[in-house]
Amino acid sequence: MIPTVEWEHGAVKILDQSLLPEKVEVLVCHEYQSVVHAIQDLKVRGAPAIGVTAAMGLALGAQSIKASSFTEFQTAFQVMCDCMSSARPTAVNLFWAIDRMKRFVLERKDKPLEWIQQQVILEAQAILEEDIRMNQAIGDFGAALITDGQTILTHCNAGALATAGYGTALGVIRSAWKTKKGIRVIADETRPVLQGARLTAWELQQDGIPTTLITDNAAGSLMKQGRIHLCVVGADRIAANGDVANKIGTYSVAVLAKAHGIPFYVAAPSSTIDITMTSGEHIPIEQRSSTEVTTLYGRHPIAPEGIDVLNPAFDVTPAEYITGIITDHGVVVPHEIATIIA
Amino acid sequence: MIPTVEWEHGAVKILDQSLLPEKVEVLVCHEYQSVVHAIQDLKVRGAPAIGVTAAMGLALGAQSIKASSFTEFQTAFQVMCDCMSSARPTAVNLFWAIDRMKRFVLERKDKPLEWIQQQVILEAQAILEEDIRMNQAIGDFGAALITDGQTILTHCNAGALATAGYGTALGVIRSAWKTKKGIRVIADETRPVLQGARLTAWELQQDGIPTTLITDNAAGSLMKQGRIHLCVVGADRIAANGDVANKIGTYSVAVLAKAHGIPFYVAAPSSTIDITMTSGEHIPIEQRSSTEVTTLYGRHPIAPEGIDVLNPAFDVTPAEYITGIITDHGVVVPHEIATIIA
Repeated sequence: MIPTVEWEHGAVKILDQSLLPEKVEVLVCHEYQSVVHAIQDLKVRGAPAIGVTAAMGLALGAQSIKASSFTEFQTAFQVMCDCMSSARPTAVNLFWAIDRMKRFVLERKDKPLEWIQQQVILEAQAILEEDIRMNQAIGDFGAALITDGQTILTHCNAGALATAGYGTALGVIRSAWKTKKGIRVIADETRPVLQGARLTAWELQQDGIPTTLITDNAAGSLMKQGRIHLCVVGADRIAANGDVANKIGTYSVAVLAKAHGIPFYVAAPSSTIDITMTSGEHIPIEQRSSTEVTTLYGRHPIAPEGIDVLNPAFDVTPAEYITGIITDHGVVVPHEIATIIA
Repeated sequence: MIPTVEWEHGAVKILDQSLLPEKVEVLVCHEYQSVVHAIQDLKVRGAPAIGVTAAMGLALGAQSIKASSFTEFQTAFQVMCDCMSSARPTAVNLFWAIDRMKRFVLERKDKPLEWIQQQVILEAQAILEEDIRMNQAIGDFGAALITDGQTILTHCNAGALATAGYGTALGVIRSAWKTKKGIRVIADETRPVLQGARLTAWELQQDGIPTTLITDNAAGSLMKQGRIHLCVVGADRIAANGDVANKIGTYSVAVLAKAHGIPFYVAAPSSTIDITMTSGEHIPIEQRSSTEVTTLYGRHPIAPEGIDVLNPAFDVTPAEYITGIITDHGVVVPHEIATIIA
């Protein structure tokens, strides 16, 4: 499979997810601004992938800085960090990765600038590699929660495409698939951007994992019929009390799961935990363009012109709806999530 | 507004809803088979509209019968009725209208065939006019449940387009709009066929009723934020115990409404009640083509080729999730629905 994002020959290569599954195209970014736009335009999306891509973008930006002192270098780098921070508001991994890169630079202020420019590339690559390792750990911890023959519902795409590789929620499914017999996946299509239909269905199909695509509307009915045994989704930000921001519709799935006594798990690396947020209600929720709802791909209209639209990209699922959070350090109950950081 | 369906100059004219809101085109049917296809292909949809259209289609078919005796006439008419019955399985109004037309013919077996052929046209028109009157009664009973300033969520389209005119759920909203101040509508887009985005948003926009379009995924989050005060939807079939079959996703809305303490109403004419069904679990649920989910309008792919799909067109909401059923005879609690028929 083509990597979600990678560093190659002094450029950042991003698999353009906005074209999948129809076209498989790689975007080659030579300037950090192109990376910012790729994040804004959902060419790369998914909280962990956004974090890794931001780090790569900053490493790319750092190469272009012409400075005669560390202070000059840092000032220019800070501008890039601010620009990168503005790309999207909800996924905390973005800010986590930017902070880590900033700190990395600052801690090396006494070193030659050329050496720092080399090192930030290595640091971005380290973030990428750590992300894959964290996903594999998440996958292994999560697989233990799944039993033979279960059908697992997932919402949006928390897969290899949402991370540097392997995936969080789909990492759990991948790990389970290796050892459990007869598991199946139900993928919510996930309107409006259809990450479930376009990305999750595609990813799992490529891995040969039995997958059925449904509209978001069909999830409740299938739960009532006893055809879903477990839910697992990713996260864009986890508050200190265990509340989880994730793709719009996640909250509905969680309420439905609870009403039917179905376990509901969130899978995320520790970089998704934001202990500065005491609860989910403080997490900023991105409102995206109405054209995501009123058109398909901005081209084909599916609603009357001029209609008012609300298009929140995320919602918050309170901790009490979450059976457990599967992290790279193990599975915890939501209200104990802060202990992962400690 | 253009009528959903009408009889004109010996033909059945159907507003082609599959093209809305982009194109406003009227399909003129000269043969009953064209009416069957129009129902199958969702050119006309919505349980009451399907019933009225079926009656019109049978009246049209009756005109083409060349028979020398009532028995011959009835045999040919029965073939048409069987064909019409096969158009769609879930909405009971279809079978209700067909049965009524069959009974109407049978009760006139001693009359001249030409006279019967004239009378069936009048009977189909009577069904149409009754439907509009029932909707207006539903609207007036339902409006009493709404208070000034409320925001009302509706799912799918139970509007003028789903009936002979005025609408059931949207009839309630239309009646409320006349007398209540500051009411607003939230319209679920209603995947996969987008009746909410394409039809409800369009209908309410034409009437100047403030309407906000959302993805089906956003309903739960808006409920949690206290931004929805009441839900009202239509019905395709109501069982004797008050269980309701309606557009896929209705059950999810009902579960979410209950979890948030929001009243959830169903609006439907008495022709939607099927007392032969003891409970909703016996209602046949139509499974529709996977291309409704994997493509937009059968043309633009939105999922990988060959992916497995489940596409139930309806779900069943158990009576315990329903605050009340708004009928043309008044508002009843679900388990008393059979009394409407008695």
